[in-house]
Amino acid sequence: MMSRPVNIGIIGFGTVGTGTARILLQKKRELEERAGFPIILKRIADIDIRRDRGLRLPKGMLVKDYREIVDDPEIQIVVELIGGISPAKEIIVEAIRKGKHVVTANKALLATSGHTIFNAAKRKGVEVGFEASVAGGIPIIKIIRESLVGNNIQSIFGIINGTSNYILTKMTKEGVDFSTALRDAQRLGYAEADPTLDIGGIDSAHKLAILATLAFGIPFSFKKIYTEGITGLSQLDIQFAEELGYTIKLLAISKQKGRDVEMRVHPTMLPSGHILSNVGGVYNAVFIEGDAVGQCLFYGRGAGEMPTGGAVVSDIVDIARDINSGAVGRIRDIGIAGRSDLRIKGMEDILSCYYLRFYAIDKPGVLSKISGILGSFNISIKSVIQKERKKERAVPLVMMTHTARERDVVNALREIKKLSVVTGRPVYIRVEEEGE
Amino acid sequence: MMSRPVNIGIIGFGTVGTGTARILLQKKRELEERAGFPIILKRIADIDIRRDRGLRLPKGMLVKDYREIVDDPEIQIVVELIGGISPAKEIIVEAIRKGKHVVTANKALLATSGHTIFNAAKRKGVEVGFEASVAGGIPIIKIIRESLVGNNIQSIFGIINGTSNYILTKMTKEGVDFSTALRDAQRLGYAEADPTLDIGGIDSAHKLAILATLAFGIPFSFKKIYTEGITGLSQLDIQFAEELGYTIKLLAISKQKGRDVEMRVHPTMLPSGHILSNVGGVYNAVFIEGDAVGQCLFYGRGAGEMPTGGAVVSDIVDIARDINSGAVGRIRDIGIAGRSDLRIKGMEDILSCYYLRFYAIDKPGVLSKISGILGSFNISIKSVIQKERKKERAVPLVMMTHTARERDVVNALREIKKLSVVTGRPVYIRVEEEGE
Repeated sequence: MMSRPVNIGIIGFGTVGTGTARILLQKKRELEERAGFPIILKRIADIDIRRDRGLRLPKGMLVKDYREIVDDPEIQIVVELIGGISPAKEIIVEAIRKGKHVVTANKALLATSGHTIFNAAKRKGVEVGFEASVAGGIPIIKIIRESLVGNNIQSIFGIINGTSNYILTKMTKEGVDFSTALRDAQRLGYAEADPTLDIGGIDSAHKLAILATLAFGIPFSFKKIYTEGITGLSQLDIQFAEELGYTIKLLAISKQKGRDVEMRVHPTMLPSGHILSNVGGVYNAVFIEGDAVGQCLFYGRGAGEMPTGGAVVSDIVDIARDINSGAVGRIRDIGIAGRSDLRIKGMEDILSCYYLRFYAIDKPGVLSKISGILGSFNISIKSVIQKERKKERAVPLVMMTHTARERDVVNALREIKKLSVVTGRPVYIRVEEEGE
Repeated sequence: MMSRPVNIGIIGFGTVGTGTARILLQKKRELEERAGFPIILKRIADIDIRRDRGLRLPKGMLVKDYREIVDDPEIQIVVELIGGISPAKEIIVEAIRKGKHVVTANKALLATSGHTIFNAAKRKGVEVGFEASVAGGIPIIKIIRESLVGNNIQSIFGIINGTSNYILTKMTKEGVDFSTALRDAQRLGYAEADPTLDIGGIDSAHKLAILATLAFGIPFSFKKIYTEGITGLSQLDIQFAEELGYTIKLLAISKQKGRDVEMRVHPTMLPSGHILSNVGGVYNAVFIEGDAVGQCLFYGRGAGEMPTGGAVVSDIVDIARDINSGAVGRIRDIGIAGRSDLRIKGMEDILSCYYLRFYAIDKPGVLSKISGILGSFNISIKSVIQKERKKERAVPLVMMTHTARERDVVNALREIKKLSVVTGRPVYIRVEEEGE
């Protein structure tokens, strides 16, 4: 193996860029010992070269123009950490065209343009590392690509958005409403000023697109993912869930059966004994079921300067090892062969158990009307709760169903909504029992 | 990258050998697609070539003499799955001398002779894969060596013996005593006829020796690990723990601070909200705290044909990729530089909180005598429980301490045992609060 230094350039000096630079600079000696050669941070580019990131850089290391990295023939690995689609995409494509290896944490870009990026890299014979794009400090990309190489994965699901999980944990533990919990998350820096990507489930869907591609070999399919965020969740449903022995989490779920792949992001009720139910605050966790490994779970910080910076550094060291041992392309494509025969299952065809909540007038015959409609759509009821009694007034009526088809549930609820004894919009939340 | 087939020989056709062979044979096509070249199981050796393992092998694949593998110039990777020290060690050393790469699940061998094996491999320029040696299906070796390469690990601890965890889970959930739970584990095949290695904590200590070497760069130090099994645990202490909000688990613990490394295996009380408390049955879980990643946890099946076989296959694919891309030795040594300046902390010097349980005569002044002795050894008490009242008779007295030094606790208990009002041997269980 060669012991030549490998030179790195970082584009984007925000949170993750700072963490990456901090590790590369402060652990230079350890990284050299572990890799067997020096890994040199040569340059960092950011449009803001004034802000203090609490990190002392050698003079001249921080520059404004990313071209000083992409055009530098000495730099072998370009680390893109600016996020978003443009100009990140153009910069990565340009870096690849110039023969640079790329490390990125950009889930939005990979989820939507992953094939463009990976195909360009393949043509040029360079590597693309993306460990930091999903679940921050949890090395889920390497686990799927390398450790589970002897498995056919059957399902993968998890909590992969720390902001939403922080909000849900706070709503569950402290009984506060959604907007209070969101404000608290914003105050602590766990949520952005515009939190749409996180609380709308879009960020989870970006990451799920990447996970499903790795796990099942399906093309990156962000646009086809059914996505429902946590904005509409009410304290009432969180409390009913608790009473029934469940916890509500925002899950990203992908399952494969035969040629069908399910891909969906939505609030989900998990049995309180489920290992994912106990994942609180900003932590992430990914549950995988494989035909050899069985059920396994990986838990850790899903974001933040140092956890995500550490994931970027692991990619840098991996690629640097490949460079110096002449093994670029050692892991083929994205690690799993593409499967052209898979199709994404329409949301209306998924099977799940459901939590249903209605506001219905408390009078005789109402339950029979509602359950009659459910029955006519092949939905059978596992349990019913009606706690309050307010004769002739609307009270919450909660039902847990056995396995039913999404389409049937949606159609049944449409019929039930029309009943004169039902007020307001019926609520339904999917239930996940697997892995309990 | 070359697309030559890589030939494999498995020595030892027991549980893990069967799982490994099953995956290599039944997923030949998938593995070839993922690796980019064929991975061929050429031969399996076992002294028992008659027993039915439920797997159809091509004629001539199964042989009695391991030399048909070690001497075969076509075989590049020798998979040692016979376990135990001898003749596994001799076979591995011979295979290495003949230039074969080695994959092994043999924790006892690595924990005691790891340096002999790794040094021989280094001299000969071959690789040794050992993912399957710790925690079965959990890819903890790769995670520490590769994914956490940018971290200095501060602590690593976990449940890494499924047999003990099954027994403790059963004792906790069903209230049965140790011997009943053990018999049940034996009936289900989770415990061997001679369960000493598992319930005595020795198997956990073997694995801890490997984890600590990877995490901290300390030489394999099995013999220096303080090891206490679960044999002495009574139902009474499990119940008191529960009442105090704790769960008892057999933990393997290693922590580094400055030059000191702690290494110990013993029953440990964890707060019931701790993520490790909810790891039940035969599952394993490893908790790691690193300076970049923060706290993370990896959970899965710690043993069994398919989970462990899958781990062996991941090593085979890794090494085969290195062979075909000319990158043998891509990861240096065992992945982390050795540190000669570390020393193993004596058990008597560790600091911990403690659960203490005495049988003491129920009469005035007893608590003051006991707490007086504890105080004189700098042990301060956090809480006391004495539930039963039986005037002038022995009743259990339970105390939780603040952080104390092991030596002080042992010495104080020796004094307390001498008190005429105390009957029987005082019990103490260490408490782990980190990572809650």
